Amino acid sequence: MPYVHIVTALAVLQFVVFGFKVAAARGRYGVKAPAITGNETFERLFRIQMNTLEQLIVFLPGLYLFAAYLSPYWAAALGVVYLLGRELYAFTYVRDPAKRSLGYGVTFLPIVILVMSGLIGAVRAAWHLNWPAA
Amino acid sequence: MPYVHIVTALAVLQFVVFGFKVAAARGRYGVKAPAITGNETFERLFRIQMNTLEQLIVFLPGLYLFAAYLSPYWAAALGVVYLLGRELYAFTYVRDPAKRSLGYGVTFLPIVILVMSGLIGAVRAAWHLNWPAA
Amino acid sequence: MPYVHIVTALAVLQFVVFGFKVAAARGRYGVKAPAITGNETFERLFRIQMNTLEQLIVFLPGLYLFAAYLSPYWAAALGVVYLLGRELYAFTYVRDPAKRSLGYGVTFLPIVILVMSGLIGAVRAAWHLNWPAA
Repeated sequence: MPYVHIVTALAVLQFVVFGFKVAAARGRYGVKAPAITGNETFERLFRIQMNTLEQLIVFLPGLYLFAAYLSPYWAAALGVVYLLGRELYAFTYVRDPAKRSLGYGVTFLPIVILVMSGLIGAVRAAWHLNWPAA
Repeated sequence: MPYVHIVTALAVLQFVVFGFKVAAARGRYGVKAPAITGNETFERLFRIQMNTLEQLIVFLPGLYLFAAYLSPYWAAALGVVYLLGRELYAFTYVRDPAKRSLGYGVTFLPIVILVMSGLIGAVRAAWHLNWPAA
Repeated sequence: MPYVHIVTALAVLQFVVFGFKVAAARGRYGVKAPAITGNETFERLFRIQMNTLEQLIVFLPGLYLFAAYLSPYWAAALGVVYLLGRELYAFTYVRDPAKRSLGYGVTFLPIVILVMSGLIGAVRAAWHLNWPAA
């Protein structure tokens, strides 16, 4: 599992870095807390952070379900794709929100694979628990 | 634990579906990223997604604490109540935000049971660790 | 691990309480759902809740990584610092958002220690998996 743990730590640290950029943008563009609007670049950086939060709450459970039922190595590999996809998403979104789709897709595809495979693995395990001979 | 894992996967997939509805509403109602306001229906769908995120970060730890200290079967059963409550919450909120209370309650009650029971279980385990004879 | 579990339950319950304050402020200041702006105090309470959500998604994985690779007791101790830091953060933010830095720091420091130590622990474990003799 250490590879899955490394990916976990990197994913939350990536999110922390996105948060730092939001905090820095507050100062640079004069968006005083608690406001979350008022400057286009600030709003883009804020949405990158929030969208990453929305992805993390799906990604992390998916990562561990996949690791438990299929393979921690493949879970970690899909996690690396997620991390790179998030970087691409952030890089493109801050320049032009209309071009965020590719980065979003490269993030979302590994997440769907992780969660859906984990779900199938759990359903099969529940099935065998009830009908061991089947 | 497979039942708890199935509920975990369903809960994050339910959240993903709520996110899809927000993304679709961006196009339908012309709310261009990074804006998160400008259309009432979009804002309702966005709040459903965000509120579900707020619930998930409490629900998932509660689910696993309850499963560890009490019963994974009852944890999964309470999880099903949570899932149905969220559907009711989303269904009513998008029609009339003033009527979201019932769905919110059906979500929140199992969450409180999961977390509080998990907390009591953990406190008792810590107690027995220190005073095994008590 | 019961101490880590107690901290987990307290951290999500603290977040629930922050959410209650947001809900109460909706009524008191007439900010009808789905709006999230319109009253300064509501916005401060809302940002306290959202910022705590952003911290939880980093704190909880960090707590468990640290507990797994270093010590569940020190993980729980750092968790208590996090809990107190969040209380200070909420207390100061609602009075004056400009003075939220100290509480933020007292929250963020234990989070960084938890995640970075967990990452180093995981990297060392992965290393020894590949070069057991080294």
